[in-house]
Amino acid sequence: MNPRVGFIGLGAMGAPMAENLAKAGLLQCVWNRTPSKAQTLAGKLSVEVAATPAGVAKVCNVICICVSEDRDVLAVIDAISLGIEADTIVIDHSTVSVNTAVAAAEKVRDHGGEFLDAPVSGGVEGARAATLAIMVGGKPETLERARPVLEIVGSRIAHMGDTGAGQATKAVNQVLCAGINQAVTEALAFGHALGLDLEKVIDVVSQGAAGNWFLEKRGPTMVRGRFEPGFKLNLHHKDLRICQAMARETGISLPLVDTTLKDYQKLLGDHGEEDISTLYRLKNPGKPMA
Amino acid sequence: MNPRVGFIGLGAMGAPMAENLAKAGLLQCVWNRTPSKAQTLAGKLSVEVAATPAGVAKVCNVICICVSEDRDVLAVIDAISLGIEADTIVIDHSTVSVNTAVAAAEKVRDHGGEFLDAPVSGGVEGARAATLAIMVGGKPETLERARPVLEIVGSRIAHMGDTGAGQATKAVNQVLCAGINQAVTEALAFGHALGLDLEKVIDVVSQGAAGNWFLEKRGPTMVRGRFEPGFKLNLHHKDLRICQAMARETGISLPLVDTTLKDYQKLLGDHGEEDISTLYRLKNPGKPMA
Repeated sequence: MNPRVGFIGLGAMGAPMAENLAKAGLLQCVWNRTPSKAQTLAGKLSVEVAATPAGVAKVCNVICICVSEDRDVLAVIDAISLGIEADTIVIDHSTVSVNTAVAAAEKVRDHGGEFLDAPVSGGVEGARAATLAIMVGGKPETLERARPVLEIVGSRIAHMGDTGAGQATKAVNQVLCAGINQAVTEALAFGHALGLDLEKVIDVVSQGAAGNWFLEKRGPTMVRGRFEPGFKLNLHHKDLRICQAMARETGISLPLVDTTLKDYQKLLGDHGEEDISTLYRLKNPGKPMA
Repeated sequence: MNPRVGFIGLGAMGAPMAENLAKAGLLQCVWNRTPSKAQTLAGKLSVEVAATPAGVAKVCNVICICVSEDRDVLAVIDAISLGIEADTIVIDHSTVSVNTAVAAAEKVRDHGGEFLDAPVSGGVEGARAATLAIMVGGKPETLERARPVLEIVGSRIAHMGDTGAGQATKAVNQVLCAGINQAVTEALAFGHALGLDLEKVIDVVSQGAAGNWFLEKRGPTMVRGRFEPGFKLNLHHKDLRICQAMARETGISLPLVDTTLKDYQKLLGDHGEEDISTLYRLKNPGKPMA
């Protein structure tokens, strides 16, 4: 397979992923709901901007999607469906429900193509550095065909099972992120109350058994009252509602997720566009500056 | 200063730390409350076993302590106090309250010596590999004199401030560990309910924004129902009660710590000697085997 890649959805994650595909010479064209973003990026990368998602499908045999909501994924799939051919692979990097992945896969297969749910983790840093972890659901042989494309954007590609298993794994990842956000913000607010030099605390604690990605990457900014995304609170809120619904279906309770949703609810209005580390505002109301 | 090091307290952390000091040729003698442990280790390392803590102080000018409880630290300090001389440095690696660190430092200084609170993080793995993070409170010049000893047992040595600042930092570390334990056990129980291959989940998720030490080191064992310490639940419970008391004094609330103490309370009776990852038993009561 000679991959001609199209990318749909050029947000905080999608744009740097598309950029890495362009650098590797694989990207043919892009589409974005806000056209100006697509124009800017396409100019920089010297690739085409399609007028519609269907236009992407016309010239590409690998179509990568990275959008925000379940309904956006399904709308994109509908829009590209007439352009899907027998060798077309649709790779959805969005974080959506297992049910959406299953519905999307059926639509793509109805048109003769193949589908992978392939959500990613690693933050905007990982997207830029092409070190994303990619959690893949779908047929193993489809993953093997798509691997040359996935290897351009990520450094760990794991086949988790059938369609939806990538999204189920991402749901576990999002629950972890919620709990770690709670842990890091609560612990640093405690350190602040104790009068410690928080940058020193972050540095030393990161080297021990409490070490974690979020503390290292977001700790130094949150204690300075800076909350540029990163990973927007309103998106994590959306993901956690998916997790809560999935948990209910399986009969398990996720108390940390319930607590985090309540906390995020308080922040959504004024701080929904900020990084999830803005939770520090609630834990340490005296501290954050902006 | 030519350090002649003594080590008091040869538990899960103390024993490998003493072993690394012996390998570096610095360890002179050891003492442990349970003498058999000291005999076994001393035989292996070809160092002396002191009959009493005072015996350690008699031959050593750097006395490292690594015991469990606040009262144990103060009892050891009392026991060694008559052996303390002008160039003696007492380094306490135990995790205790800031108040205990301050009281211990006063006692040591009353006898002409110097004191550092120097709790560690990095687990038994870090103790064995000499890669511990060491959080130090006390005079900077005392730390400089003690540095050649600390560098044998740890790879990151951070001066956090005056006496007690090491313990305050460790308290922040323990709060983080509690929250991360909650996050990891809840997320993996969720993954189990979703029918995922948890070892694959741990592997891929560790590479992304949810990556953390605890998931990597304890995830694979907890999902197999294995809970050998590691870090014993009853010790973390003790530490978190210290954190809760410190938080009350500073007027901050630590909801994750409150929840974790309640959860640990349910496990203390039957599982207090197990690793803190035994929390997985509560989150996923159907799963763990032993």
